[in-house]
Amino acid sequence: MKEITGGITAAKGFQAASAAAGIKYQNRTDMAMIYSEVPCNAAGTFTTNIVKAAPVKWDMEIVKNAPYAQAVIVNSGIANACTGEEGYGYCRETAKEAAKVLGIPEHAVLVGSTGVIGMQIPIDRICAGISMLAEKKSGTLESGTEAAKAIMTTDTVKKEVAVQIELGGKTVTIGGMCKGSGMIHPNMCTMLGYVTTDAAISKEMLQKALSTDVCDTYNMVSVDGDTSTNDTVLLLANGLAGNPEITEDGEDYQTFLAALNFVNTTLARKIAGDGEGATALFTVKVIGAESKEQAVTLSKSVVTSSLTKAAIYGHDANWGRILCAMGYSGAQFDPEKVDLTFESAAGSQKIIENGVAVDYSEEVATKILSEEEVIVIADVKMGNASATAWGCDLTYDYVKINADYRS
Amino acid sequence: MKEITGGITAAKGFQAASAAAGIKYQNRTDMAMIYSEVPCNAAGTFTTNIVKAAPVKWDMEIVKNAPYAQAVIVNSGIANACTGEEGYGYCRETAKEAAKVLGIPEHAVLVGSTGVIGMQIPIDRICAGISMLAEKKSGTLESGTEAAKAIMTTDTVKKEVAVQIELGGKTVTIGGMCKGSGMIHPNMCTMLGYVTTDAAISKEMLQKALSTDVCDTYNMVSVDGDTSTNDTVLLLANGLAGNPEITEDGEDYQTFLAALNFVNTTLARKIAGDGEGATALFTVKVIGAESKEQAVTLSKSVVTSSLTKAAIYGHDANWGRILCAMGYSGAQFDPEKVDLTFESAAGSQKIIENGVAVDYSEEVATKILSEEEVIVIADVKMGNASATAWGCDLTYDYVKINADYRS
Repeated sequence: MKEITGGITAAKGFQAASAAAGIKYQNRTDMAMIYSEVPCNAAGTFTTNIVKAAPVKWDMEIVKNAPYAQAVIVNSGIANACTGEEGYGYCRETAKEAAKVLGIPEHAVLVGSTGVIGMQIPIDRICAGISMLAEKKSGTLESGTEAAKAIMTTDTVKKEVAVQIELGGKTVTIGGMCKGSGMIHPNMCTMLGYVTTDAAISKEMLQKALSTDVCDTYNMVSVDGDTSTNDTVLLLANGLAGNPEITEDGEDYQTFLAALNFVNTTLARKIAGDGEGATALFTVKVIGAESKEQAVTLSKSVVTSSLTKAAIYGHDANWGRILCAMGYSGAQFDPEKVDLTFESAAGSQKIIENGVAVDYSEEVATKILSEEEVIVIADVKMGNASATAWGCDLTYDYVKINADYRS
Repeated sequence: MKEITGGITAAKGFQAASAAAGIKYQNRTDMAMIYSEVPCNAAGTFTTNIVKAAPVKWDMEIVKNAPYAQAVIVNSGIANACTGEEGYGYCRETAKEAAKVLGIPEHAVLVGSTGVIGMQIPIDRICAGISMLAEKKSGTLESGTEAAKAIMTTDTVKKEVAVQIELGGKTVTIGGMCKGSGMIHPNMCTMLGYVTTDAAISKEMLQKALSTDVCDTYNMVSVDGDTSTNDTVLLLANGLAGNPEITEDGEDYQTFLAALNFVNTTLARKIAGDGEGATALFTVKVIGAESKEQAVTLSKSVVTSSLTKAAIYGHDANWGRILCAMGYSGAQFDPEKVDLTFESAAGSQKIIENGVAVDYSEEVATKILSEEEVIVIADVKMGNASATAWGCDLTYDYVKINADYRS
């Protein structure tokens, strides 16, 4: 596996574009298109929130029932959530317009929205934006990057990644982009993530790969504990790499899965590290667990603890809050067996052994906690299962951003 | 039922005291004593966190097995949590010392601690403090108030309340104090709450009353979603009011329960309103629910949503976040039937009807959201059950306080 430059246009036959359609923002791009020159198998995972945005409902239907997909139209600024029948109608109109200008069927168009909940999208501007997108779309890496920028809301950096693998003597590429920042506590998938590949893989195996992988990647990210109404990850495969089609589990599928995992892990970590107001990526590894489920529960509880997140912001080795968060997670363990270690680019320091503090230097711990990525490793000494969750620190800026996001 | 001035010393035969023992803080009181002139029946509810502080373990044992209780010794500054065998030993030494100076059995002494996790308490200073407390203790209302001040950590105001009821022609008094502020998301009970009464009531009915009532009061409070290692509510009844002893359900028990509910609700609301960094008490009422459980799940999900709490701080009627938090709560409901209303001293404004925004004035909504208590009422139109949860807004000061709490 080799990481390469690029994002959603890295794989063969994928084009992208961005446009400034004036949906809600001024002076920036706010619409993106992903287009494949040939039909794709499509897989998707979506929010488990009962309140599902209109584009989520639309995409769920397409992924489940349409024979193939060929384009995705995304807007930022307005989420098209809590917008009733009217909002769902706008998804249909978006798909209709894109189908017309791209010369593909309406059922081959996926849609996505992110931004404020409760406002209706201005469909005229969306339609005008689609014409601009169709005209500008290209397969350059730059157009992929421009699309990644257009879907940002409170994100501070665009998020993309691409890798190459060999399958049956052919080079297969997987690339992706995502946006995150707030209302990020995915359950089935994250805010918006789009992954494209030229691999030849059946629709069934594509969905299996995505559904398996989101559990270890996007679903292990939390910025603020709020599971969005719009969480969507789409994975499009157009087969242009010419590898022997993956139709069952085996070496090729596992190679593909490993590459997909790299792409999704990279994107998930980018979301956590660029959480609203964040100054640090906060990684929590639970090891020695009895089961994967236990490790997931414990690591997610720590990564979402407001008190722990504030301590990370303060570079304070406040391990009591970590043990406390493990304790109220609902998972069973013996607090008096737990070892805790802080780790970062600045070094590694064991803080507690068997539930009690060891004689460590606060100064060294603070140095470790001052890096851009801070890792906590908790060993519960019950078995061999482990899990990793990603979050960020809780800062003044998170409050600032969210106290007046709508205005 | 009549609210009166006072707290833990309002009921007959209860004395209190505070002392500056220098446990961790300088220049302030940090130890409190509650003492009853005669033995009390004792009831208690405790944290469900697996990581239980030493005083929680001590009190659970006393409440369960000791024939009676007569004193409580509380310190602030250090929580005596994650302190192993050594920490539990200090609970025993605290009780031993208090027993000696008060002339009561060791098993009649309850203990409580709040503050930093992971440090050992300086037992010499605790013992010296106990002597000061025993000497100063008195039944005046002021000494109750001083005790309420001594148990504060990041609290900005002391929290106490008292009421009187008539039982069998006798005046019965119930008074209480508590502290809250951070690591507040009680599960079984809150950080530290102490309620005293001169009612004559059997140990069994006393525990039943407390266990019933915490579900609607302390357990409905959340400041930051972090369930503490030290949550404790103790209820002491010394029988000095001379009412016919309550030994079963009936009119007297219900009257007592209603008064206890008033005391606990008042204290719980004080904890929420004085959450770390809070500028507003945030009250969420879910009505029209199918079951109490559903109403509890929905109301707690909204009151703990970081995004919603930040919006309350910004006086922003960001109802999408409220509906979103209901949606990911795990409770089932139809988003397209929900009505939402904001209410405060400044008025009342319906914001959404059947899941869609009504034509409301943002200006009026902002005015309503700028009061000291902001109430959200969500009607899910499924039945007659309801629940109320209390929290607070998420502010810069919450982050500030918790980024350097230990230092």
